[in-house]
Amino acid sequence: MKIQSLETFDLRFPTSRTQDGTDAMHTDPDYSAAYVILKTGGGPQGHGFAFTIGRGNEICAAAIEAFRHHVVGLTLNEITEDFGGFWRRLAGDSQLRWLGPEKGVVHLALAAIVNAVWDLYGKVEGKPVWKLLADMTPKQLVSCIDFRYITDVLTPEEAFEMLDRLARTRSDREAELLRAGYPAYTTSVGWMGYSDDKVRAACREAIAEGWTHFKVKVGADPRDDTRRVGIVREAIGPTRTLMVDANQRWDVGEAIARMKDLSQFNPLWIEEPTSPDDVLGHAAIARAIHPIGVATGEHCANRVMFKQLLQAQAISFCQIDSCRLGGVNENLAVMLMAAKFGVPVCPHAGGVGLCELVQHLSMFDYIAVTGTMENRVTEFVDHLHEHFVDPVVIERARYMLPEQPGYSTEIKKESRDHYRYPDGPVWSA
Amino acid sequence: MKIQSLETFDLRFPTSRTQDGTDAMHTDPDYSAAYVILKTGGGPQGHGFAFTIGRGNEICAAAIEAFRHHVVGLTLNEITEDFGGFWRRLAGDSQLRWLGPEKGVVHLALAAIVNAVWDLYGKVEGKPVWKLLADMTPKQLVSCIDFRYITDVLTPEEAFEMLDRLARTRSDREAELLRAGYPAYTTSVGWMGYSDDKVRAACREAIAEGWTHFKVKVGADPRDDTRRVGIVREAIGPTRTLMVDANQRWDVGEAIARMKDLSQFNPLWIEEPTSPDDVLGHAAIARAIHPIGVATGEHCANRVMFKQLLQAQAISFCQIDSCRLGGVNENLAVMLMAAKFGVPVCPHAGGVGLCELVQHLSMFDYIAVTGTMENRVTEFVDHLHEHFVDPVVIERARYMLPEQPGYSTEIKKESRDHYRYPDGPVWSA
Repeated sequence: MKIQSLETFDLRFPTSRTQDGTDAMHTDPDYSAAYVILKTGGGPQGHGFAFTIGRGNEICAAAIEAFRHHVVGLTLNEITEDFGGFWRRLAGDSQLRWLGPEKGVVHLALAAIVNAVWDLYGKVEGKPVWKLLADMTPKQLVSCIDFRYITDVLTPEEAFEMLDRLARTRSDREAELLRAGYPAYTTSVGWMGYSDDKVRAACREAIAEGWTHFKVKVGADPRDDTRRVGIVREAIGPTRTLMVDANQRWDVGEAIARMKDLSQFNPLWIEEPTSPDDVLGHAAIARAIHPIGVATGEHCANRVMFKQLLQAQAISFCQIDSCRLGGVNENLAVMLMAAKFGVPVCPHAGGVGLCELVQHLSMFDYIAVTGTMENRVTEFVDHLHEHFVDPVVIERARYMLPEQPGYSTEIKKESRDHYRYPDGPVWSA
Repeated sequence: MKIQSLETFDLRFPTSRTQDGTDAMHTDPDYSAAYVILKTGGGPQGHGFAFTIGRGNEICAAAIEAFRHHVVGLTLNEITEDFGGFWRRLAGDSQLRWLGPEKGVVHLALAAIVNAVWDLYGKVEGKPVWKLLADMTPKQLVSCIDFRYITDVLTPEEAFEMLDRLARTRSDREAELLRAGYPAYTTSVGWMGYSDDKVRAACREAIAEGWTHFKVKVGADPRDDTRRVGIVREAIGPTRTLMVDANQRWDVGEAIARMKDLSQFNPLWIEEPTSPDDVLGHAAIARAIHPIGVATGEHCANRVMFKQLLQAQAISFCQIDSCRLGGVNENLAVMLMAAKFGVPVCPHAGGVGLCELVQHLSMFDYIAVTGTMENRVTEFVDHLHEHFVDPVVIERARYMLPEQPGYSTEIKKESRDHYRYPDGPVWSA
């Protein structure tokens, strides 16, 4: 099973036309995938992508091309028998690492490739990725992780012990997931660009569908924020859960002041209150607004940043991202560190395909890393799922176990043709 | 003076062929410039670049292209009358920021463009950039800075006061620089790929030239490190200053253990002991190895990361980089924060052109930000200066004041043609 070629695609969906996905910093996102297919010459293909929001998706696709020499020509087995080593060769490329290291475009590109390898691996093994992971021994799982820069918080030995402790009871939790799925929350009610009436209608609809956790965008004019969050709290009533998300809009002092005001609506967390790089800033905010929690992660560059957010007690909710971190492997490292610190993982999702991917990680977290769904919810946004060969299935606000082999990454051929930028019919028209 | 077009170039110098510039992580660097020219239609041109080390330089050039819509069509005056606002429009582009934000390839590209604007600005005003800065009022300087995410440490009002305090005595220090230049140190004696004999010969030569501060690469096999650092200490004698640089090779615990050993050679600082993202790790190392200082910055992504390195007392030396940070403007913010914390700025340089640019910043730091050269040295590497229209002048281990208008960024036309990748004669041959 040799990877014989690597093909990239710049796929963009014109979501900015309807204001879906808008927030205080990202006012016109066109949800996009820097998409890669690993071809094995007649055998199964590995599909992977990184998520972006429009301009620059071509740069990300170019960065995927730049990793070609680390991938093409290898067999799947050569990769998976030392998956941590493969990951480090990409992250540590002696010239490309200057562009990061382990952040920005090169790290997004690495994620796309690593995700494609996992998709291929799952297809070859005939298992969805959550099940592929759940069937690995603790030793195999540990070998997927590059522990560089995190051994002061988590050693391979500790990771092994954590995984080993839950290994014998994994099947109980698989059965529970099959029965009841994994809890989700909705962000679709409160995009920044929505009118008040549209927010109210979306809340009514979501309640009817069984949603219990609702997230609203803030970070605009303070009076608008207060009004919009108030509308949602009124619409969902006092017992359902509300979260707010500032998308990095505030400075540290401003975040504290704004949350003092918004605390009247009893939010569970404030997400991305300030710069995603500001570990100490998040810690200062967390101390000041307790018991409201701080959540962040969709722009957290890598495991080293997550390590510090945990060390500094800066976050109460750890929002891993399937395509911002370096694929499944680095997400494993972060899930283990979060478990060690007792911080629940509540993944970022939405965009295009992020729900499809990250559900596998949430389910694995429950099966093998933490053994609990308490205080855990995975983001859900109801966009663009129709373009996927194996779309998420949500029932009564819970993710159902994916069943098809692979990582649910594959976008339908007709959608790939239609949304290709700039020459697909959606864009050339 | 309207910017009518933007042209990018992928320039690469085959430095890996001679092992110049090699370190523990970057074993085969081809020093490269993602280069941009801003053309004004017959008037002066602004030249700028970001530095990379080979593969991926094309991605950086593509990222410069992606910012075109923020630059082309503006007059120089429209930019400089609200330079901080211009900077924020680039850093905050509502779609491109997803690829960072403010880090990796998009931030390098931003730096290239901003540097080109300063070059143009200097040429139009007929002044080298250090002098252009030195002639600005405190108010003008403050207006160049985007204070987003740093107001918890430095407000515009504080920055104004700091600059105002030294404003009236600037000319004294200009005269002193003209007389004596700015102190430098050499990294050219201790590249990782050099043989022991080559290191000894380079030390002898450097001492003869008047150098007093010498930096050596470490992070390889511990016994090799000890031997090589010992060779340099022996060659330079007990009174000259030695620094060591691990280029991110170690985990936190390993860094502490290795420096306990290398402390026998009395180094002034350990540079990049671990991941450039690990603020808390650097702080732990700094506490453990005191009085040896920790230095970092060449991979420090932005002002938010520098802010935290200062807040956490993680660094004793602040190594700004003219092309990693977002150009002159963001470097101003970091120099002011470092001054507030009493941490000396000792810039990273070397590569291709980094010495040419950063000398302007060191000199401005002395003239207007701190008023002192004590404990300050700017890196110097004797590579590739011959390709510049206005190369650095070093005399007895000190940078002499640049005199030509602009930012010393311009690479000669014949060098641009010769080293263009992949079609210049150096690469196509």
